[in-house]
Amino acid sequence: MKYCKAMDNIFVIKIGGNIIDNDDKLRLFLKDFAAIKEKKILVHGGGKMATQLAEQLHIPQQLVDGRRITDAATLRIITMVYAGFINKQIVALLQAGSCDAVGLCGADGNLIQAHKREHPTIDYGFVGDIDKINISWLGKLLNENVTLVIAPVTHDKEGQLLNTNADTIAQEIAVSLATDYNVNLIYCFEKIGVLQDAADENTLIPQITLSSFATLREQKVIHSGMIPKLHNAFTALESGVKKVMIGKGEELDQLISGTSGTTML
Amino acid sequence: MKYCKAMDNIFVIKIGGNIIDNDDKLRLFLKDFAAIKEKKILVHGGGKMATQLAEQLHIPQQLVDGRRITDAATLRIITMVYAGFINKQIVALLQAGSCDAVGLCGADGNLIQAHKREHPTIDYGFVGDIDKINISWLGKLLNENVTLVIAPVTHDKEGQLLNTNADTIAQEIAVSLATDYNVNLIYCFEKIGVLQDAADENTLIPQITLSSFATLREQKVIHSGMIPKLHNAFTALESGVKKVMIGKGEELDQLISGTSGTTML
Repeated sequence: MKYCKAMDNIFVIKIGGNIIDNDDKLRLFLKDFAAIKEKKILVHGGGKMATQLAEQLHIPQQLVDGRRITDAATLRIITMVYAGFINKQIVALLQAGSCDAVGLCGADGNLIQAHKREHPTIDYGFVGDIDKINISWLGKLLNENVTLVIAPVTHDKEGQLLNTNADTIAQEIAVSLATDYNVNLIYCFEKIGVLQDAADENTLIPQITLSSFATLREQKVIHSGMIPKLHNAFTALESGVKKVMIGKGEELDQLISGTSGTTML
Repeated sequence: MKYCKAMDNIFVIKIGGNIIDNDDKLRLFLKDFAAIKEKKILVHGGGKMATQLAEQLHIPQQLVDGRRITDAATLRIITMVYAGFINKQIVALLQAGSCDAVGLCGADGNLIQAHKREHPTIDYGFVGDIDKINISWLGKLLNENVTLVIAPVTHDKEGQLLNTNADTIAQEIAVSLATDYNVNLIYCFEKIGVLQDAADENTLIPQITLSSFATLREQKVIHSGMIPKLHNAFTALESGVKKVMIGKGEELDQLISGTSGTTML
Protein backbone atom coordinates (compact mmCIF):
# COMPACT_ATOMS: atom_id res chain seq x y z
CA MET A 1 0.00 0.00 0.00
CA LYS A 2 1.40 3.32 -0.98
CA TYR A 3 1.61 5.75 1.89
CA CYS A 4 0.21 9.13 0.98
CA LYS A 5 0.93 11.92 3.42
CA ALA A 6 -2.06 14.21 3.80
CA MET A 7 -1.10 17.67 2.67
CA ASP A 8 -1.45 20.64 5.00
CA ASN A 9 -3.82 23.44 4.15
CA ILE A 10 -2.40 26.83 3.28
CA PHE A 11 -4.28 30.08 2.65
CA VAL A 12 -3.05 32.61 0.12
CA ILE A 13 -5.15 35.73 0.59
CA LYS A 14 -5.06 38.89 -1.47
CA ILE A 15 -6.38 42.23 -0.26
CA GLY A 16 -6.73 45.45 -2.20
CA GLY A 17 -7.41 49.11 -1.70
CA ASN A 18 -10.85 48.88 -0.10
CA ILE A 19 -9.31 47.22 2.96
CA ILE A 20 -5.92 48.93 2.91
CA ASP A 21 -7.33 52.46 2.62
CA ASN A 22 -9.54 52.11 5.68
CA ASP A 23 -7.60 51.79 8.92
CA ASP A 24 -10.51 50.28 10.89
CA LYS A 25 -11.29 47.74 8.16
CA LEU A 26 -7.61 46.84 7.86
CA ARG A 27 -7.28 46.22 11.61
CA LEU A 28 -10.43 44.08 11.69
CA PHE A 29 -9.32 42.14 8.63
CA LEU A 30 -5.86 41.50 10.13
CA LYS A 31 -7.44 40.29 13.36
CA ASP A 32 -9.43 37.69 11.40
CA PHE A 33 -6.40 36.87 9.27
CA ALA A 34 -4.16 36.40 12.34
CA ALA A 35 -6.75 34.00 13.77
CA ILE A 36 -6.32 31.54 10.88
CA LYS A 37 -4.56 28.58 12.46
CA GLU A 38 -3.20 27.10 9.25
CA LYS A 39 -0.21 28.44 7.35
CA LYS A 40 -1.03 31.64 5.51
CA ILE A 41 0.34 34.23 3.14
CA LEU A 42 -1.05 37.72 2.63
CA VAL A 43 -0.52 39.48 -0.69
CA HIS A 44 -1.49 43.13 -0.65
CA GLY A 45 -2.10 45.60 -3.41
CA GLY A 46 -1.80 49.31 -3.21
CA GLY A 47 -4.72 51.54 -2.50
CA LYS A 48 -5.12 55.26 -2.80
CA MET A 49 -1.97 56.34 -0.99
CA ALA A 50 0.33 55.95 -4.01
CA THR A 51 -2.02 57.99 -6.21
CA GLN A 52 -2.39 60.66 -3.53
CA LEU A 53 1.37 60.85 -3.04
CA ALA A 54 1.90 61.16 -6.80
CA GLU A 55 -0.58 64.04 -6.86
CA GLN A 56 1.10 65.79 -3.92
CA LEU A 57 4.48 65.41 -5.62
CA HIS A 58 3.05 66.57 -8.97
CA ILE A 59 4.01 63.35 -10.71
CA PRO A 60 1.47 62.90 -13.52
CA GLN A 61 -0.09 59.45 -13.65
CA GLN A 62 -0.59 58.07 -17.12
CA LEU A 63 -3.17 55.39 -17.83
CA VAL A 64 -3.25 53.41 -21.08
CA ASP A 65 -6.23 51.08 -21.56
CA GLY A 66 -6.99 51.40 -17.85
CA ARG A 67 -3.48 50.35 -16.87
CA ARG A 68 -1.05 52.58 -15.05
CA ILE A 69 2.20 53.37 -16.80
CA THR A 70 5.02 53.06 -14.29
CA ASP A 71 7.74 55.59 -15.00
CA ALA A 72 10.80 55.88 -12.72
CA ALA A 73 9.17 58.46 -10.41
CA THR A 74 6.02 56.36 -10.09
CA LEU A 75 8.05 53.21 -9.39
CA ARG A 76 9.80 55.08 -6.57
CA ILE A 77 6.42 55.99 -5.08
CA ILE A 78 5.11 52.45 -5.46
CA THR A 79 8.20 50.98 -3.81
CA MET A 80 7.92 53.47 -0.95
CA VAL A 81 4.20 53.05 -0.39
CA TYR A 82 3.64 49.35 -1.17
CA ALA A 83 6.93 47.73 -0.08
CA GLY A 84 7.52 50.34 2.63
CA PHE A 85 4.58 51.89 4.43
CA ILE A 86 1.73 49.47 3.71
CA ASN A 87 3.85 46.33 4.02
CA LYS A 88 5.53 47.30 7.30
CA GLN A 89 2.31 48.70 8.79
CA ILE A 90 0.58 45.35 8.14
CA VAL A 91 3.53 43.40 9.57
CA ALA A 92 3.58 45.53 12.75
CA LEU A 93 -0.18 45.07 13.23
CA LEU A 94 0.08 41.30 12.73
CA GLN A 95 2.99 41.09 15.16
CA ALA A 96 0.80 42.90 17.69
CA GLY A 97 -1.80 40.17 17.11
CA SER A 98 0.76 37.45 17.89
CA CYS A 99 1.05 36.50 14.25
CA ASP A 100 4.75 36.17 13.41
CA ALA A 101 4.71 38.06 10.12
CA VAL A 102 7.56 38.90 7.78
CA GLY A 103 7.12 41.46 5.01
CA LEU A 104 8.86 40.84 1.71
CA CYS A 105 8.87 42.12 -1.83
CA GLY A 106 9.87 39.99 -4.80
CA ALA A 107 13.52 41.09 -4.62
CA ASP A 108 13.96 39.76 -1.06
CA GLY A 109 15.66 36.39 -1.31
CA ASN A 110 14.83 36.59 -5.03
CA LEU A 111 11.30 35.54 -4.08
CA ILE A 112 9.67 36.69 -7.32
CA GLN A 113 11.76 37.20 -10.41
CA ALA A 114 10.14 39.07 -13.28
CA HIS A 115 10.95 40.82 -16.51
CA LYS A 116 9.95 44.25 -17.78
CA ARG A 117 6.73 43.88 -19.75
CA GLU A 118 7.20 43.72 -23.47
CA HIS A 119 4.36 45.00 -25.63
CA PRO A 120 4.38 45.74 -29.37
CA THR A 121 2.90 49.23 -29.05
CA ILE A 122 2.66 50.28 -25.39
CA ASP A 123 5.61 51.01 -23.12
CA TYR A 124 4.26 50.16 -19.67
CA GLY A 125 7.48 51.37 -18.06
CA PHE A 126 8.68 49.52 -14.99
CA VAL A 127 5.91 46.92 -14.93
CA GLY A 128 7.00 43.36 -14.33
CA ASP A 129 5.59 40.08 -15.60
CA ILE A 130 6.51 37.14 -13.40
CA ASP A 131 9.09 34.59 -14.54
CA LYS A 132 9.42 32.44 -11.44
CA ILE A 133 8.76 32.05 -7.76
CA ASN A 134 11.65 30.94 -5.55
CA ILE A 135 9.86 27.88 -4.14
CA SER A 136 12.85 26.77 -2.10
CA TRP A 137 13.05 30.08 -0.18
CA LEU A 138 9.27 30.22 0.17
CA GLY A 139 9.22 26.68 1.55
CA LYS A 140 11.97 27.41 4.08
CA LEU A 141 10.13 30.44 5.40
CA LEU A 142 6.86 28.52 5.70
CA ASN A 143 8.68 25.74 7.56
CA GLU A 144 9.78 28.37 10.08
CA ASN A 145 6.09 29.06 10.68
CA VAL A 146 6.34 32.69 9.70
CA THR A 147 3.43 34.36 7.93
CA LEU A 148 4.50 36.12 4.77
CA VAL A 149 3.18 39.53 3.80
CA ILE A 150 4.04 40.16 0.16
CA ALA A 151 4.15 43.57 -1.51
CA PRO A 152 3.44 43.81 -5.27
CA VAL A 153 6.98 44.81 -6.20
CA THR A 154 9.24 42.33 -7.99
CA HIS A 155 12.68 42.59 -9.62
CA ASP A 156 14.51 41.41 -12.72
CA LYS A 157 17.66 40.10 -10.92
CA GLU A 158 19.59 42.78 -12.78
CA GLY A 159 19.00 45.48 -10.20
CA GLN A 160 15.66 46.77 -11.44
CA LEU A 161 12.58 46.78 -9.21
CA LEU A 162 9.27 46.29 -11.05
CA ASN A 163 5.64 47.08 -10.29
CA THR A 164 3.64 43.84 -10.52
CA ASN A 165 -0.06 43.08 -10.29
CA ALA A 166 -0.94 41.75 -6.82
CA ASP A 167 -3.72 39.43 -8.11
CA THR A 168 -1.20 37.74 -10.38
CA ILE A 169 1.37 37.48 -7.58
CA ALA A 170 -1.23 35.78 -5.36
CA GLN A 171 -2.09 33.36 -8.17
CA GLU A 172 1.55 32.51 -8.96
CA ILE A 173 2.41 32.05 -5.27
CA ALA A 174 -0.65 29.80 -4.85
CA VAL A 175 0.28 27.70 -7.88
CA SER A 176 3.90 27.36 -6.74
CA LEU A 177 2.69 25.84 -3.46
CA ALA A 178 0.20 23.40 -4.99
CA THR A 179 2.67 20.48 -5.04
CA ASP A 180 3.22 20.65 -1.29
CA TYR A 181 -0.01 22.06 0.13
CA ASN A 182 -3.76 22.06 -0.25
CA VAL A 183 -3.87 25.66 -1.41
CA ASN A 184 -6.87 27.88 -0.76
CA LEU A 185 -6.59 31.09 -2.76
CA ILE A 186 -8.84 33.92 -1.63
CA TYR A 187 -9.30 37.21 -3.46
CA CYS A 188 -10.83 39.89 -1.24
CA PHE A 189 -12.46 42.82 -2.95
CA GLU A 190 -15.22 45.36 -2.35
CA LYS A 191 -18.18 43.09 -3.12
CA ILE A 192 -19.53 39.95 -1.44
CA GLY A 193 -18.57 37.90 -4.49
CA VAL A 194 -19.39 37.69 -8.18
CA LEU A 195 -22.87 39.13 -8.70
CA GLN A 196 -25.44 38.38 -11.38
CA ASP A 197 -26.38 42.06 -11.18
CA ALA A 198 -23.40 44.17 -10.11
CA ALA A 199 -25.74 46.66 -8.43
CA ASP A 200 -27.58 44.08 -6.32
CA GLU A 201 -25.80 42.23 -3.51
CA ASN A 202 -28.72 39.78 -3.36
CA THR A 203 -27.67 38.26 -6.66
CA LEU A 204 -24.51 36.49 -5.47
CA ILE A 205 -23.34 33.63 -7.66
CA PRO A 206 -22.09 31.13 -5.06
CA GLN A 207 -20.19 28.91 -7.48
CA ILE A 208 -18.65 29.31 -10.91
CA THR A 209 -17.24 26.49 -12.98
CA LEU A 210 -15.08 26.88 -16.06
CA SER A 211 -18.09 26.26 -18.30
CA SER A 212 -20.42 28.61 -16.40
CA PHE A 213 -17.60 31.22 -16.56
CA ALA A 214 -17.75 31.02 -20.37
CA THR A 215 -21.53 31.44 -20.31
CA LEU A 216 -21.41 34.35 -17.87
CA ARG A 217 -18.84 36.07 -20.09
CA GLU A 218 -21.03 35.59 -23.16
CA GLN A 219 -23.99 37.00 -21.24
CA LYS A 220 -21.78 39.97 -20.21
CA VAL A 221 -22.59 39.24 -16.56
CA ILE A 222 -18.83 39.05 -16.04
CA HIS A 223 -16.99 41.85 -17.76
CA SER A 224 -14.14 44.39 -17.54
CA GLY A 225 -12.00 44.05 -14.37
CA MET A 226 -13.66 40.79 -13.29
CA ILE A 227 -12.46 38.91 -16.36
CA PRO A 228 -8.71 38.88 -15.55
CA LYS A 229 -9.57 38.22 -11.88
CA LEU A 230 -11.58 35.11 -12.72
CA HIS A 231 -9.16 34.13 -15.45
CA ASN A 232 -6.41 34.12 -12.78
CA ALA A 233 -8.66 32.00 -10.58
CA PHE A 234 -9.23 29.31 -13.20
CA THR A 235 -5.57 29.28 -14.21
CA ALA A 236 -4.75 28.61 -10.55
CA LEU A 237 -7.29 25.76 -10.35
CA GLU A 238 -5.97 24.20 -13.54
CA SER A 239 -2.49 24.33 -12.01
CA GLY A 240 -3.37 22.40 -8.88
CA VAL A 241 -4.75 25.00 -6.48
CA LYS A 242 -7.50 23.29 -4.50
CA LYS A 243 -10.01 26.09 -4.14
CA VAL A 244 -10.34 29.71 -5.25
CA MET A 245 -12.72 32.06 -3.50
CA ILE A 246 -13.64 35.66 -4.12
CA GLY A 247 -15.52 37.89 -1.72
CA LYS A 248 -15.49 40.62 0.87
CA GLY A 249 -12.44 41.09 3.08
CA GLU A 250 -14.78 42.11 5.90
CA GLU A 251 -16.24 38.60 5.77
CA LEU A 252 -13.03 36.59 5.82
CA ASP A 253 -14.36 34.06 8.35
CA GLN A 254 -17.42 33.34 6.23
CA LEU A 255 -15.34 33.23 3.07
CA ILE A 256 -13.12 30.58 4.60
CA SER A 257 -16.07 28.58 5.93
CA GLY A 258 -17.77 28.84 2.54
CA THR A 259 -20.86 30.69 3.80
CA SER A 260 -20.03 33.82 1.83
CA GLY A 261 -18.42 34.71 -1.47
CA THR A 262 -18.12 32.97 -4.80
CA THR A 263 -16.18 29.73 -5.05
CA MET A 264 -14.49 28.78 -8.29
CA LEU A 265 -14.16 25.09 -8.95
CA MET B 1 40.65 17.62 25.65
CA LYS B 2 37.79 20.00 25.20
CA TYR B 3 36.84 20.53 21.59
CA CYS B 4 36.41 24.19 20.78
CA LYS B 5 34.86 24.94 17.42
CA ALA B 6 36.48 27.96 15.78
CA MET B 7 33.84 30.62 15.31
CA ASP B 8 33.04 31.94 11.85
CA ASN B 9 33.64 35.56 11.01
CA ILE B 10 30.69 37.81 10.39
CA PHE B 11 30.67 41.41 9.21
CA VAL B 12 28.07 43.89 10.40
CA ILE B 13 28.45 47.00 8.29
CA LYS B 14 26.60 50.26 8.66
CA ILE B 15 26.30 52.82 5.88
CA GLY B 16 24.80 56.29 6.05
CA GLY B 17 23.70 59.13 3.83
CA ASN B 18 27.01 59.86 2.09
CA ILE B 19 26.86 56.47 0.37
CA ILE B 20 23.09 56.14 0.07
CA ASP B 21 22.58 59.58 -1.50
CA ASN B 22 25.06 58.98 -4.30
CA ASP B 23 23.94 56.30 -6.76
CA ASP B 24 27.46 55.67 -8.14
CA LYS B 25 28.99 55.41 -4.67
CA LEU B 26 26.19 53.10 -3.54
CA ARG B 27 26.67 50.76 -6.50
CA LEU B 28 30.45 50.64 -5.97
CA PHE B 29 30.02 50.07 -2.24
CA LEU B 30 27.52 47.25 -2.83
CA LYS B 31 29.90 45.61 -5.32
CA ASP B 32 32.61 45.53 -2.63
CA PHE B 33 30.09 44.44 -0.01
CA ALA B 34 28.77 41.60 -2.20
CA ALA B 35 32.36 40.39 -2.68
CA ILE B 36 32.80 39.69 1.06
CA LYS B 37 32.89 35.90 1.25
CA GLU B 38 32.00 35.62 4.92
CA LYS B 39 28.52 36.07 6.36
CA LYS B 40 27.47 39.69 6.38
CA ILE B 41 24.74 42.08 7.44
CA LEU B 42 24.20 45.57 6.09
CA VAL B 43 22.47 48.17 8.27
CA HIS B 44 21.58 51.34 6.43
CA GLY B 45 20.59 54.75 7.63
CA GLY B 46 18.56 57.29 5.78
CA GLY B 47 20.12 60.01 3.73
CA LYS B 48 18.65 63.14 2.24
CA MET B 49 15.62 61.58 0.56
CA ALA B 50 13.43 61.59 3.67
CA THR B 51 14.21 65.26 4.37
CA GLN B 52 13.58 66.18 0.74
CA LEU B 53 10.29 64.30 0.70
CA ALA B 54 9.21 66.01 3.93
CA GLU B 55 9.96 69.38 2.32
CA GLN B 56 8.06 68.51 -0.85
CA LEU B 57 5.08 67.40 1.24
CA HIS B 58 5.34 70.48 3.48
CA ILE B 59 5.83 68.43 6.61
CA PRO B 60 7.89 70.62 8.95
CA GLN B 61 10.89 68.85 10.47
CA GLN B 62 11.53 69.68 14.09
CA LEU B 63 14.97 69.22 15.61
CA VAL B 64 15.58 69.31 19.37
CA ASP B 65 19.22 69.21 20.49
CA GLY B 66 20.19 68.10 17.00
CA ARG B 67 17.77 65.19 17.05
CA ARG B 68 14.83 64.84 14.75
CA ILE B 69 11.40 64.66 16.33
CA THR B 70 9.43 61.91 14.63
CA ASP B 71 5.76 62.83 14.42
CA ALA B 72 3.25 60.52 12.68
CA ALA B 73 3.72 62.15 9.26
CA THR B 74 7.51 61.96 9.55
CA LEU B 75 7.35 58.31 10.63
CA ARG B 76 5.29 57.58 7.54
CA ILE B 77 7.97 59.18 5.38
CA ILE B 78 10.76 57.33 7.19
CA THR B 79 8.99 54.00 6.80
CA MET B 80 8.39 54.68 3.11
CA VAL B 81 11.90 55.88 2.33
CA TYR B 82 14.05 53.75 4.66
CA ALA B 83 12.13 50.46 4.86
CA GLY B 84 10.70 50.88 1.36
CA PHE B 85 12.73 52.60 -1.32
CA ILE B 86 16.28 52.50 0.08
CA ASN B 87 15.98 49.00 1.53
CA LYS B 88 14.49 47.41 -1.60
CA GLN B 89 16.79 49.31 -3.94
CA ILE B 90 19.82 47.94 -2.04
CA VAL B 91 18.36 44.42 -2.04
CA ALA B 92 17.72 44.52 -5.81
CA LEU B 93 21.26 45.76 -6.49
CA LEU B 94 22.78 43.05 -4.27
CA GLN B 95 20.66 40.38 -5.95
CA ALA B 96 22.02 41.62 -9.28
CA GLY B 97 25.50 41.09 -7.84
CA SER B 98 24.69 37.47 -6.96
CA CYS B 99 24.43 38.30 -3.27
CA ASP B 100 21.27 36.66 -1.92
CA ALA B 101 19.99 39.61 0.09
CA VAL B 102 16.80 39.94 2.13
CA GLY B 103 15.63 43.35 3.33
CA LEU B 104 13.98 43.58 6.73
CA CYS B 105 12.91 46.15 9.25
CA GLY B 106 12.69 45.45 12.96
CA ALA B 107 9.02 44.44 12.76
CA ASP B 108 9.72 41.59 10.30
CA GLY B 109 9.84 38.38 12.31
CA ASN B 110 9.97 40.64 15.37
CA LEU B 111 13.66 41.11 14.55
CA ILE B 112 14.12 44.25 16.67
CA GLN B 113 11.67 45.06 19.42
CA ALA B 114 11.82 48.55 20.86
CA HIS B 115 9.86 50.99 23.00
CA LYS B 116 8.93 54.60 22.38
CA ARG B 117 11.66 56.76 23.88
CA GLU B 118 10.83 58.16 27.28
CA HIS B 119 12.40 61.48 28.20
CA PRO B 120 11.57 63.75 31.16
CA THR B 121 11.22 66.91 29.07
CA ILE B 122 11.39 66.11 25.34
CA ASP B 123 8.77 64.18 23.39
CA TYR B 124 10.78 62.60 20.59
CA GLY B 125 7.61 61.22 19.04
CA PHE B 126 7.84 57.83 17.35
CA VAL B 127 11.50 57.21 18.15
CA GLY B 128 12.35 53.74 19.40
CA ASP B 129 14.99 52.58 21.85
CA ILE B 130 15.87 48.93 21.40
CA ASP B 131 14.72 46.30 23.91
CA LYS B 132 15.85 43.12 22.23
CA ILE B 133 17.08 41.43 19.08
CA ASN B 134 15.39 38.19 18.01
CA ILE B 135 18.59 36.13 17.96
CA SER B 136 16.78 32.91 17.07
CA TRP B 137 15.27 34.40 13.88
CA LEU B 138 18.52 36.17 13.03
CA GLY B 139 20.45 32.91 13.45
CA LYS B 140 18.03 30.97 11.24
CA LEU B 141 18.34 33.51 8.45
CA LEU B 142 22.14 33.52 8.66
CA ASN B 143 22.14 29.72 8.54
CA GLU B 144 20.23 29.96 5.25
CA ASN B 145 23.18 31.98 3.93
CA VAL B 146 21.10 35.02 3.16
CA THR B 147 22.61 38.47 3.57
CA LEU B 148 20.43 40.73 5.66
CA VAL B 149 19.81 44.35 4.77
CA ILE B 150 18.30 46.09 7.78
CA ALA B 151 16.36 49.37 7.68
CA PRO B 152 16.38 51.61 10.79
CA VAL B 153 12.71 51.09 11.58
CA THR B 154 11.70 48.99 14.60
CA HIS B 155 8.39 48.28 16.35
CA ASP B 156 6.97 47.94 19.84
CA LYS B 157 5.11 44.63 19.27
CA GLU B 158 1.90 46.56 19.91
CA GLY B 159 1.45 47.67 16.32
CA GLN B 160 3.57 50.81 16.38
CA LEU B 161 6.51 51.26 14.04
CA LEU B 162 9.38 53.33 15.45
CA ASN B 163 12.26 55.32 13.96
CA THR B 164 15.51 53.97 15.41
CA ASN B 165 19.11 55.07 15.10
CA ALA B 166 20.97 52.90 12.55
CA ASP B 167 24.32 53.10 14.41
CA THR B 168 22.65 51.67 17.49
CA ILE B 169 20.91 48.94 15.49
CA ALA B 170 24.27 47.91 13.99
CA GLN B 171 25.81 47.82 17.47
CA GLU B 172 22.96 45.80 19.01
CA ILE B 173 22.91 43.34 16.10
CA ALA B 174 26.69 42.94 16.38
CA VAL B 175 26.50 42.31 20.14
CA SER B 176 23.65 39.80 19.75
CA LEU B 177 25.87 37.74 17.41
CA ALA B 178 29.00 37.82 19.58
CA THR B 179 28.26 34.47 21.27
CA ASP B 180 28.16 32.62 17.97
CA TYR B 181 30.48 34.55 15.67
CA ASN B 182 33.69 36.55 15.52
CA VAL B 183 31.91 39.81 14.86
CA ASN B 184 33.54 42.61 12.88
CA LEU B 185 31.50 45.79 13.19
CA ILE B 186 32.25 48.46 10.61
CA TYR B 187 30.82 51.97 10.62
CA CYS B 188 31.16 53.67 7.26
CA PHE B 189 30.95 57.43 7.22
CA GLU B 190 32.20 60.36 5.15
CA LYS B 191 35.75 60.48 6.51
CA ILE B 192 38.65 58.01 6.31
CA GLY B 193 38.43 57.42 10.05
CA VAL B 194 38.76 59.37 13.28
CA LEU B 195 41.01 62.35 12.63
CA GLN B 196 43.26 64.26 15.01
CA ASP B 197 42.33 67.36 13.00
CA ALA B 198 38.87 67.00 11.46
CA ALA B 199 39.93 69.23 8.53
CA ASP B 200 43.03 67.21 7.65
CA GLU B 201 42.73 63.67 6.29
CA ASN B 202 46.47 63.16 6.90
CA THR B 203 45.86 63.06 10.64
CA LEU B 204 44.12 59.67 10.81
CA ILE B 205 44.20 58.01 14.21
CA PRO B 206 44.66 54.33 13.23
CA GLN B 207 43.75 52.89 16.62
CA ILE B 208 41.79 54.04 19.66
CA THR B 209 41.64 52.22 22.95
CA LEU B 210 39.17 52.90 25.73
CA SER B 211 41.79 54.92 27.62
CA SER B 212 42.93 56.91 24.57
CA PHE B 213 39.21 57.56 23.84
CA ALA B 214 38.94 59.26 27.26
CA THR B 215 42.03 61.37 26.56
CA LEU B 216 40.83 62.34 23.07
CA ARG B 217 37.49 63.41 24.53
CA GLU B 218 39.23 65.55 27.18
CA GLN B 219 41.36 67.13 24.46
CA LYS B 220 38.16 67.80 22.46
CA VAL B 221 39.67 65.94 19.50
CA ILE B 222 36.59 63.74 19.61
CA HIS B 223 33.41 65.73 20.05
CA SER B 224 29.74 66.16 19.06
CA GLY B 225 28.45 63.42 16.73
CA MET B 226 31.60 61.29 17.06
CA ILE B 227 31.07 60.72 20.78
CA PRO B 228 27.96 58.52 20.54
CA LYS B 229 29.48 56.74 17.50
CA LEU B 230 32.61 55.78 19.44
CA HIS B 231 30.65 55.15 22.59
CA ASN B 232 28.60 52.58 20.61
CA ALA B 233 31.86 51.08 19.38
CA PHE B 234 33.29 50.55 22.84
CA THR B 235 30.01 49.24 24.21
CA ALA B 236 30.09 46.66 21.41
CA LEU B 237 33.69 45.66 22.23
CA GLU B 238 32.88 45.32 25.91
CA SER B 239 29.99 43.05 24.95
CA GLY B 240 32.09 40.59 22.98
CA VAL B 241 32.33 42.09 19.50
CA LYS B 242 35.81 41.22 18.20
CA LYS B 243 36.67 44.34 16.28
CA VAL B 244 35.09 47.72 15.54
CA MET B 245 36.27 49.81 12.63
CA ILE B 246 35.25 53.20 11.39
CA GLY B 247 36.13 54.66 8.02
CA LYS B 248 35.13 55.49 4.48
CA GLY B 249 32.53 53.35 2.70
CA GLU B 250 34.44 53.93 -0.53
CA GLU B 251 37.38 52.08 1.02
CA LEU B 252 35.56 49.02 2.31
CA ASP B 253 38.25 46.60 1.08
CA GLN B 254 40.99 48.51 2.90
CA LEU B 255 38.82 48.89 5.99
CA ILE B 256 38.36 45.13 6.14
CA SER B 257 42.05 44.44 5.52
CA GLY B 258 42.97 47.02 8.17
CA THR B 259 44.90 49.30 5.83
CA SER B 260 42.46 52.17 6.21
CA GLY B 261 40.20 53.56 8.90
CA THR B 262 40.36 53.68 12.66
CA THR B 263 40.19 50.44 14.63
CA MET B 264 38.76 50.44 18.13
CA LEU B 265 40.17 47.80 20.45
